[in-house]
Amino acid sequence: MEPFGEYDKNRGMQSQKDTFEVRPIAYLNSVFDHKFGTPRQGMLAPHGEAWLQLDPLWRNKGMLEGLEGISHVWLISLFHQNKNRRVPSKIHPPRLLGESVGVLASRSPHHPNSLGLTLAKVNRVEGDSLWISGIDLVDGTPILDIKPYLADADRPTEFSGGWTDQLPETAVACVFSQEALNQLDQLVVRRKIVNQQKFMALVQEVLALDPRPLSYRQRTNERFAIVLGGMDVHARYNENQFTVLSIQPFEANADEPQDPSEP
Amino acid sequence: MEPFGEYDKNRGMQSQKDTFEVRPIAYLNSVFDHKFGTPRQGMLAPHGEAWLQLDPLWRNKGMLEGLEGISHVWLISLFHQNKNRRVPSKIHPPRLLGESVGVLASRSPHHPNSLGLTLAKVNRVEGDSLWISGIDLVDGTPILDIKPYLADADRPTEFSGGWTDQLPETAVACVFSQEALNQLDQLVVRRKIVNQQKFMALVQEVLALDPRPLSYRQRTNERFAIVLGGMDVHARYNENQFTVLSIQPFEANADEPQDPSEP
Repeated sequence: MEPFGEYDKNRGMQSQKDTFEVRPIAYLNSVFDHKFGTPRQGMLAPHGEAWLQLDPLWRNKGMLEGLEGISHVWLISLFHQNKNRRVPSKIHPPRLLGESVGVLASRSPHHPNSLGLTLAKVNRVEGDSLWISGIDLVDGTPILDIKPYLADADRPTEFSGGWTDQLPETAVACVFSQEALNQLDQLVVRRKIVNQQKFMALVQEVLALDPRPLSYRQRTNERFAIVLGGMDVHARYNENQFTVLSIQPFEANADEPQDPSEP
Repeated sequence: MEPFGEYDKNRGMQSQKDTFEVRPIAYLNSVFDHKFGTPRQGMLAPHGEAWLQLDPLWRNKGMLEGLEGISHVWLISLFHQNKNRRVPSKIHPPRLLGESVGVLASRSPHHPNSLGLTLAKVNRVEGDSLWISGIDLVDGTPILDIKPYLADADRPTEFSGGWTDQLPETAVACVFSQEALNQLDQLVVRRKIVNQQKFMALVQEVLALDPRPLSYRQRTNERFAIVLGGMDVHARYNENQFTVLSIQPFEANADEPQDPSEP
């Protein structure tokens, strides 16, 4: 690309030490309790719901007014559960089955600055609260910004996806065991789950995306657990499908005592 | 929306004082030298070009590898020129001609945290450098993240724009005076402008978007200046069109001395 006159200013040829402080405007309450099982992209799990209320600093000012009628919003978030602060240069996206790409050419959560970008469907706006769905964010995620989706800014007429167009991931079937169905009935009776159909749809969407890391995909018949909407969902992969084995209220593990003051 | 069991956790009911530090991964070299004249949304000015090179901290690692073939990227940036740190609750978007909406229901640069979100067209990738166009970002903008545009995450099949669908802004015609054309010829001879056609297209795109603030739009026949690609472009609005009056290399104003050590 040719410069216009003074165009190439070579700013930033030396490493700049500038840092800036950001402060969450809200924390997300999400059906995805744990990182494991949270979809890599939310649009593939439309029942992935969440709710947020603006921080008291920004309340009662009408900052969300006008979002009614806008169907989608961008959330800029922080991947606060990135415990390893080292940023990988290359990552191995699941759909490339082992090949690597530069981390900035991917939507990996391990970018410098750990910022997330998620398009969410707006379900309801009420005062300083926002109900959304189709998200890929874990419970407690700090939200730094909310912006409306604009067709004339965000929707190119022609585009190409490069490596991301390769080998789309295939959906995996999912069935519920009789035990899981019985437990679900009980949970509805006990009002632990409000809407059974929605909960089952969420479980199926999450399993269809195959949440297991690549290294686990060769193993079959192995039980694993996902926590969704406060429920501990156990499942097993076998013969090209997932079977949901049990659904129970999530209890913190023995090695994660709820009261850390007790030994 | 109904909760699933333990869903509504009411996290963040008290104001949280958590802050996080972010550090630019690059600084943008853009044709838009000054904030005035920079389009509100870049897709409407495809000749708005920019170039960036990753900070030395992130160089020679192949972090941009794989972007070739991907037509568009998201840039998460900082509106570093927001001098007024006060965040307005409501803003008056130009297309609403005076009506207001909540700042988070708009793409105003004055959000809490001053984060920008821009979709840019990828023109070229080479090592740690990226050439892009269709941007709405001023020269020197700190870039916090680069992410590929993904159709399956970023492109809802059905959507609605709410208030943003109202009253699309109309494009304004733009002509060049003979003086401006003569100056352009000279600037090309002097190699201050490399590609005359591209430069003229950029000027026309920027003026077609009518960069003047709402409060100035009643005034006609008044000269104003925009700095584009290092050039001081003077124009005038009259009879439903802009006339470009002159194009000259930009010189810092007398009240902005280049050497602040001199009185």
